[in-house]
Amino acid sequence: MQPYELTITQASRAIATRELSPVELLDSVSSQIERHEARVGAFATLTLDSAREAARSAEAQIRASGPAGPLHGIPVGIKDLCDTAGVASTSSSRTRAGRVATADSAVTARLLAAGAVLVGQTHTHEYAYGVITPTTRNPWDLDRIPGGSSGGSGAALAARMVLGATGTDTGGSIRIPSALNGTTGLKPTYGRVSRYGITSLCWALDHAGPMARTVPDVALLLQTLAGYDPRDPGSVDEPVPDYSAGLDGAAGLAGLTFGVPTNYYVAPIEPDVEAAFRAAVATLQDAGASIREVELPLAGTYLPIEYGILVAEATAYHQGTLRAKGELYEADVRVLLEAGELMFAADYLRALRARQLVKLAWQGLFEGLDAVLAPTLCATAVRADDPVVRWPDGTEEPAIDVYVKASAPGNLTGLPALSVPCGFDSQGLPIGLQVYGRPFDEATVLRVGAAFEAATDFANRMPTGLG
Amino acid sequence: MQPYELTITQASRAIATRELSPVELLDSVSSQIERHEARVGAFATLTLDSAREAARSAEAQIRASGPAGPLHGIPVGIKDLCDTAGVASTSSSRTRAGRVATADSAVTARLLAAGAVLVGQTHTHEYAYGVITPTTRNPWDLDRIPGGSSGGSGAALAARMVLGATGTDTGGSIRIPSALNGTTGLKPTYGRVSRYGITSLCWALDHAGPMARTVPDVALLLQTLAGYDPRDPGSVDEPVPDYSAGLDGAAGLAGLTFGVPTNYYVAPIEPDVEAAFRAAVATLQDAGASIREVELPLAGTYLPIEYGILVAEATAYHQGTLRAKGELYEADVRVLLEAGELMFAADYLRALRARQLVKLAWQGLFEGLDAVLAPTLCATAVRADDPVVRWPDGTEEPAIDVYVKASAPGNLTGLPALSVPCGFDSQGLPIGLQVYGRPFDEATVLRVGAAFEAATDFANRMPTGLG
Repeated sequence: MQPYELTITQASRAIATRELSPVELLDSVSSQIERHEARVGAFATLTLDSAREAARSAEAQIRASGPAGPLHGIPVGIKDLCDTAGVASTSSSRTRAGRVATADSAVTARLLAAGAVLVGQTHTHEYAYGVITPTTRNPWDLDRIPGGSSGGSGAALAARMVLGATGTDTGGSIRIPSALNGTTGLKPTYGRVSRYGITSLCWALDHAGPMARTVPDVALLLQTLAGYDPRDPGSVDEPVPDYSAGLDGAAGLAGLTFGVPTNYYVAPIEPDVEAAFRAAVATLQDAGASIREVELPLAGTYLPIEYGILVAEATAYHQGTLRAKGELYEADVRVLLEAGELMFAADYLRALRARQLVKLAWQGLFEGLDAVLAPTLCATAVRADDPVVRWPDGTEEPAIDVYVKASAPGNLTGLPALSVPCGFDSQGLPIGLQVYGRPFDEATVLRVGAAFEAATDFANRMPTGLG
Repeated sequence: MQPYELTITQASRAIATRELSPVELLDSVSSQIERHEARVGAFATLTLDSAREAARSAEAQIRASGPAGPLHGIPVGIKDLCDTAGVASTSSSRTRAGRVATADSAVTARLLAAGAVLVGQTHTHEYAYGVITPTTRNPWDLDRIPGGSSGGSGAALAARMVLGATGTDTGGSIRIPSALNGTTGLKPTYGRVSRYGITSLCWALDHAGPMARTVPDVALLLQTLAGYDPRDPGSVDEPVPDYSAGLDGAAGLAGLTFGVPTNYYVAPIEPDVEAAFRAAVATLQDAGASIREVELPLAGTYLPIEYGILVAEATAYHQGTLRAKGELYEADVRVLLEAGELMFAADYLRALRARQLVKLAWQGLFEGLDAVLAPTLCATAVRADDPVVRWPDGTEEPAIDVYVKASAPGNLTGLPALSVPCGFDSQGLPIGLQVYGRPFDEATVLRVGAAFEAATDFANRMPTGLG
């Protein structure tokens, strides 16, 4: 087994016992980057020189006094939407070509303070405004998209170029690439992880969160990322529990009740995805959970509300740049920003008010439930040259709508939502299981994901597209 | 001295010592209503029958076991924007003709629980969307407006038809009628008084608060109205101090530093208002305060931001009714609502973001200051048939812009702002002094107002317009 194959949890143990040094680990992931990055395109900027220095320094510190924590010496990627001081932080946009950040985003600063080694800035769909990430390809099939907007993070994790990464999620941008790349990602509760220093797409819906290969790894990253930050107006001052406690499976899932939707995620859906989801529910039931069928409330409103809020706020943020150098945006992002200029305030405000009704209705939905289960997405990764989902009934739908539709409930409600690998379709493409939890109850969501992971081995498969 | 002439503080003492009964007090204010209401038009609905029952019941309770508190048996008015269960609560709008509320607003419920006697619903400018209150006239000059939108509350207080009242303030609607009617009103900190059950005009800027004739009376009302209420999403869970403590003037104003603006409130301004304001500053200096000249930051943005937020949110709230029965709105409100339908989301959002900059800039402004002083308005009450301010240089401005401009800093910053009477112009019309304070520091604002009141006698004058 090569060091790049290790999870954070495994690498961290090996580093603590001096079986592995941060320099060896970095060298190993660097070799993966050298082999595959030209075809995958996960990174907007590589920082391997400074990473080597950081790994050497970590090695010396650990030799002298042991690791500062479980992320000490672990190679990670930072989504290019998050500022990293002294490094090109461009939101993968030509409008920001050459922009070097002068201060760290909160997520960068927290990972650095924990001793993580920054390998580079991972590609985002331009300004996180899309789910394709056209710069990047899916390690399971290089003709396919990695999803987005945190597509670089998802692809880098799947290709074993990093062991952990940051993502952001406004309409699924952590969960979509996690599902499509066969990796694991958590959109935490709104307010749980600071967005300071992350370029805003839509502040009412933006979340930052961890991406990794396994649930215990996501828990380790969340432990470092979570916490109150007054510099983010949406940050909430809630205690941060021990996210790794309770993941060993000793407790099982007995006594927990999960809702399984009878609508919304049911149709249209790819048959392989539906089968994998039903099997995942059965696996969790075998692990002791009770299952109750639930109807998702106000389901017809989720996508219009999501777009109503997103399109308006994104344009408000970008309007100055759009006027000054609109020609530098990619065509797909530019047309969305220009469409937003025609949106009326009353419609935006109606969307915001309807969102409150959705939040309240989901509060009711969760009565007596510990989690709600769903497919992360109802379709797998589409081809990069044809980003359209073809449903069994012959109809077609743009991939962006298919992917955002399945993600939007998490952004509108602000509830924590985890995606874990739960199978593969007949073409060998990964499928994700989505676990929604109660507000600030990431611990239960992670516990469910860990129990599922322990009962299956989907998270350990190597991607098939790299040869 | 007639009972209707008493302040809440005086009446409350007389009730406690059994010199005055709630029934006698209600009879006395009823006689004022009978004499003057036909010309003043302060009330949308009078509830004198149920008020008599309440007064009798209060009388019996007080005879049996003493008053429950300082508001027990005190006649008050409720702004018609605030729901009162079982009473027509119409926001002074024909679109709500005959609408009887089924539940009390938080402010109504709190006043009732404190034993106050509800005399009626006071007129608001339709849906609080204006500062004229065309139903109502100013007791100092019946050809003039009482201001608004809490114009009924201001006029009822000045005409001694109630001893206390509720108001709401989105762009000055407590402070404007307080200044124009020679009464006292406090817009508390955003989040201090619950808006539950009050019809929204603009939730980002709406405040509810107390109106009365004197500062100690306002303090007594605020004591009852203040407090956390999870039913209002803007409510803040901050401790409620004793607002009457420190109002006796024993401490004076020594050690306090007040900012006096060198801009914004300086021009254009009516000379009599400017003179009264300068004299008020000198009075506070004589009482021991230090004065420092300050420049209000970003002052050119206040009015555009205020309207940008207000116009968009008001239309979002009313759009359904506008479409269903737009012809029932008054022409001035209807045109504002229709204008709001054309407002772009990006402009609304720019206004919201600029508002954050104003808030931050005022945080900086307050460094080393305990309060900021200003004229409440830069002009006195305009004629009802000609609602225009004519400045000394010959230019004209709609009264709404003049009044809202002077009030907007309090709504944008959310800071507490008190208006106390500070003089009269050459036509005998009242002038107000405005005292801005730190967040949730209503106590200091009230202390400044009480010290000013103790050094002057503007708050005790009877209005000259009732004959």
